[in-house]
Amino acid sequence: MAPPKYLTGDKAGIEEFLSRFDVFLFDCDGVLWSGDHLFPHVPETIEMLRSKGKRLVFVTNNSTKSRADYKKKFDQMGIPAEVEEVFGSSYSAAVYIARILKLPAPKNKVFVLGESGVEQELDAEGVRYCGGTDPAFRRDIEPEDFINIANGSALDPEVGIVLAGLDFHLNYLKMSVAFQYLQRGAVFLATNIDSSLPMAHSLFPGAASAGAGVAKAIGKEPLSLGKPSQAMMDAVEGKFQFDRSRTCMVGDRMNTDIQFGIDGKLGGTLAVLTGVSKKEDFLAEDAQTVPTAYIDSLGSLLG
Amino acid sequence: MAPPKYLTGDKAGIEEFLSRFDVFLFDCDGVLWSGDHLFPHVPETIEMLRSKGKRLVFVTNNSTKSRADYKKKFDQMGIPAEVEEVFGSSYSAAVYIARILKLPAPKNKVFVLGESGVEQELDAEGVRYCGGTDPAFRRDIEPEDFINIANGSALDPEVGIVLAGLDFHLNYLKMSVAFQYLQRGAVFLATNIDSSLPMAHSLFPGAASAGAGVAKAIGKEPLSLGKPSQAMMDAVEGKFQFDRSRTCMVGDRMNTDIQFGIDGKLGGTLAVLTGVSKKEDFLAEDAQTVPTAYIDSLGSLLG
Repeated sequence: MAPPKYLTGDKAGIEEFLSRFDVFLFDCDGVLWSGDHLFPHVPETIEMLRSKGKRLVFVTNNSTKSRADYKKKFDQMGIPAEVEEVFGSSYSAAVYIARILKLPAPKNKVFVLGESGVEQELDAEGVRYCGGTDPAFRRDIEPEDFINIANGSALDPEVGIVLAGLDFHLNYLKMSVAFQYLQRGAVFLATNIDSSLPMAHSLFPGAASAGAGVAKAIGKEPLSLGKPSQAMMDAVEGKFQFDRSRTCMVGDRMNTDIQFGIDGKLGGTLAVLTGVSKKEDFLAEDAQTVPTAYIDSLGSLLG
Repeated sequence: MAPPKYLTGDKAGIEEFLSRFDVFLFDCDGVLWSGDHLFPHVPETIEMLRSKGKRLVFVTNNSTKSRADYKKKFDQMGIPAEVEEVFGSSYSAAVYIARILKLPAPKNKVFVLGESGVEQELDAEGVRYCGGTDPAFRRDIEPEDFINIANGSALDPEVGIVLAGLDFHLNYLKMSVAFQYLQRGAVFLATNIDSSLPMAHSLFPGAASAGAGVAKAIGKEPLSLGKPSQAMMDAVEGKFQFDRSRTCMVGDRMNTDIQFGIDGKLGGTLAVLTGVSKKEDFLAEDAQTVPTAYIDSLGSLLG
């Protein structure tokens, strides 16, 4: 494995690196911003790449926000972006279900463990669903629920997929219904399987937590549509046709972003040091995941 | 490994087998009864063992029922038993916390993911707790909760243990609080880690489901105080002093009951065929778990 090239301050190196790609896939948190803090020179860097005719796709594992929600965040941050350029894990799941999995109707409805972001993206791809934010599921399980779930009378016979994402309203009733659909053969998907969620300067249970109880019960893990799962890369490709050899993944986390690009056989990967991974992580002798190049921050690309 | 001895109809073999033990540990569901169906001749068999001076302990992974709840079930079934003879996984956890773990006060309070059965058993052993059935935790998470959980103002500084059991009122708020205690160093225990719960002739998420999301978030599994974990055997021994070489485990499941007895280096194990495991499971050439002996049903011990 070649050691990663350090590009900060290397004008010629940056020029050569950028010339090798037509498409850049960007992770967002840790690359463009951290929470509500925008990193320096990000909007100008994005504009510079656009001015060179690069296609940009913002790939995020956040499943509670829809692309429209995400677009608002870009607007607030002053980063020029289109809704169509945002590719969240909820949308990834919707694209995967509608364009790749393509279960035959009528048994192609989705039972959702998740928030409205998931529902909006399923709507956008014309995928039918139940569960999700439906108030009927936001309550404690009652004795008659056990009977009606077990005998199927509380189930929708058209459900063929269970999709688990981050669900702030997770409860035993939803878990029981999801588990029952899986026992009856439903396909098990997850928007992403991030174990924790950074919030309020601490960590909270991540998207994987919503599916974990059900996964334990059924004894198998869901197929994740988030980074670093290649099902997400397939979904990105299902929407945007691109030449993988001319595509670069930009991210801050080795085990999700950079691995996602390497597993996807992209032409290159670019690590930024404004997020989770430190340069020691990939410069170490025994580093598992090594990017093609790295820079201090995205703004360094301005040279 | 010696093949298991088949005892049904073998009067002399039964006599010799029983003479090797002073103590019998019994699994309940699948051995004494199935749901509300009592197996034939169970009360007489239990009485026969008592008349021979055997000590009996009923060891169950059910964590939602207290020993007093369980005693009521024995009464309904017409099986003579004392509360003190019942050893459920909630009680096992309470005994483990109070008599084996013995964290120094004041940081020895337990945050409970579970139902009142867990609380009653903690009370019985004088263990302090919070969470559990407290209505304050039976609600959706609110934006201010994220802040107050993260900064610790919503936490009890005396909590040093998180105990996860079957919780029909599991929600994201409880999971977040439990995860925060674990991030701050709390010991992670589970009453048991059964993946599913048989109810209404189907399966529902089991005790492991309550802890699974939190376990995924923190990246480690809880120590289980249920079968086949030897922490439960230690807890049984912590309460009843007995000679393991003169003790026999009776159960229907190879991977929990019989394994529990083998791992605990008991003098013997006895499988009954009225529950989950079939004789093909342990008579197979490649069987992982083989009991000392087996019988068609517990009543077969009457000869």
